[in-house]
Amino acid sequence: MRPEKILIWNDFNWDGVSPELRSSTLDRYQFVQGADNLKRATIAFGKPDPDALKDALNLRWIQLTSAGHAPYDGADIRAIFKERGITLTNSSAVYAEPCAEHLFAMMLALARCLPRAWDNQRGARAWDHEGQREQSFLLQQQKVLLLGYGAIARRLAEMLAPFQMQIFALRRHPSKENKVTMIAKDQLSKVLSEADHIVNALPENDSTRHFVDAQFLDHVKPQARLYNIGRGNTVDQTALLSALRDGRLAAAYLDVTTPEPLPPDNPLWSAPNCYISPHSGGGHRDEYTRLLHHFLDNLKKFEKDGELTDRVA
Amino acid sequence: MRPEKILIWNDFNWDGVSPELRSSTLDRYQFVQGADNLKRATIAFGKPDPDALKDALNLRWIQLTSAGHAPYDGADIRAIFKERGITLTNSSAVYAEPCAEHLFAMMLALARCLPRAWDNQRGARAWDHEGQREQSFLLQQQKVLLLGYGAIARRLAEMLAPFQMQIFALRRHPSKENKVTMIAKDQLSKVLSEADHIVNALPENDSTRHFVDAQFLDHVKPQARLYNIGRGNTVDQTALLSALRDGRLAAAYLDVTTPEPLPPDNPLWSAPNCYISPHSGGGHRDEYTRLLHHFLDNLKKFEKDGELTDRVA
Repeated sequence: MRPEKILIWNDFNWDGVSPELRSSTLDRYQFVQGADNLKRATIAFGKPDPDALKDALNLRWIQLTSAGHAPYDGADIRAIFKERGITLTNSSAVYAEPCAEHLFAMMLALARCLPRAWDNQRGARAWDHEGQREQSFLLQQQKVLLLGYGAIARRLAEMLAPFQMQIFALRRHPSKENKVTMIAKDQLSKVLSEADHIVNALPENDSTRHFVDAQFLDHVKPQARLYNIGRGNTVDQTALLSALRDGRLAAAYLDVTTPEPLPPDNPLWSAPNCYISPHSGGGHRDEYTRLLHHFLDNLKKFEKDGELTDRVA
Repeated sequence: MRPEKILIWNDFNWDGVSPELRSSTLDRYQFVQGADNLKRATIAFGKPDPDALKDALNLRWIQLTSAGHAPYDGADIRAIFKERGITLTNSSAVYAEPCAEHLFAMMLALARCLPRAWDNQRGARAWDHEGQREQSFLLQQQKVLLLGYGAIARRLAEMLAPFQMQIFALRRHPSKENKVTMIAKDQLSKVLSEADHIVNALPENDSTRHFVDAQFLDHVKPQARLYNIGRGNTVDQTALLSALRDGRLAAAYLDVTTPEPLPPDNPLWSAPNCYISPHSGGGHRDEYTRLLHHFLDNLKKFEKDGELTDRVA
């Protein structure tokens, strides 16, 4: 079926789309914006205001331009989706690649002491050949624990394959998948005590808030590195700060924090061996082009009543 | 055969070897040091003085603790090796992994704008979410040109496999190997004009000096990144500086320079988008343990008159 109306609600950057794709898309489909149009729209693309959805009586499908969908995951909204037969998809497939590349960049950069090299370049310009080498280590044959095993973690596991690492993933239903050993929560403390790298890619929901807390950090071995590419509130930052100050972690990398932006006077910025980037993991110069391609691919399926990719409700 | 004598000539750091391996090795084999002992030694391990080799009449095998072997590659030394039936091996197999991890760390770190994030953390502690995202790009589906296709470049190609990149390698005898397209010198300018990443892993010899010169850099596209993990003198640093200042390269990364150490007042330290580390690519905290394992593996083969790994003469 030909969709009656397509809504760009907010947070979609047409200027970020290649000119050819932008004009061919806008020639073909009617994209509109604003609260009044949401009431008439059949399809919403972007991040529509969750509170406004109850008035959107014509809506049949929402494609989010994010990987997370926490604001659309409450009991009320889920009831509306179910009652009206609304499909919810997200853009996980778009964000898996940049987030996994980003996380992997940081794993390798810390292993190779690149921040130390750049501090030297900005400062003394010494040639600390031996020190830099002795502080570096190989990823090869180390142990990685993935917290969560969604699209980002699966893609990261593919990227790690050539490194012959031991990869564990925490998920609700343990199983063995390819070369990743899935573990359940009762095995967590044992794996934590052995993992060299702990990759937090947990989504935001009731069960993940402060998943990485003081007790969790007590189990981690001192040489371990913790990375957060998921959501800021899955980490208890007070406990993390204390662990970094006590040297109970070799390093932490946060691409997501609570709050965002992280205020310049937050002590994490200057905590020992703590590295922070401004929630940039999922971004890249072709981000909006890829988001639109992902939407148009799903739109074709929607028009043929096919199964949509990245369906979450 | 049981070796009569093993020589540690220089540049081997026993303190860097794990205590168990050190004691089990020293219990079993006689390691000695110094010019007088070189004359009596059957086997040399380390980096013996090339000039002293002419007096080492008992020598049957030298295993270098480096990947490069340029000081042992002159016509005079080669003649001695041939005349006396001396075998020369290097430690390429040990250095391929750290050098490839190091180079790959830098490729990913630049793609994800990590230096920008760290400058921010050391400075304003702003939250440049959009800027950081828009400057980042995906490695996926980009083009890489490898200059040289030795152990480091081959290992790097394996690491790049999950990224679906187009990989080209310049070597004397073009062929197609796995997913790498080998090119000859007459195809270089065309591939240079398309490559997003140019990885220089050339060894030092007469044909590679200033291989990357002004003419080479004229062919490179403006978004390209140049990395040097091979030897400093394969790049004409004056031409490189000029290309960086003119914006003819998006970035350069040098782990090796001419001279080393690079003096603090060398203009490359502050050239735009130039990143430098102190020849640390091959190093890591288990470097000497791995070097010794590699030697002991070859020693077993030597004792059984087997084929040695990493033989170069």
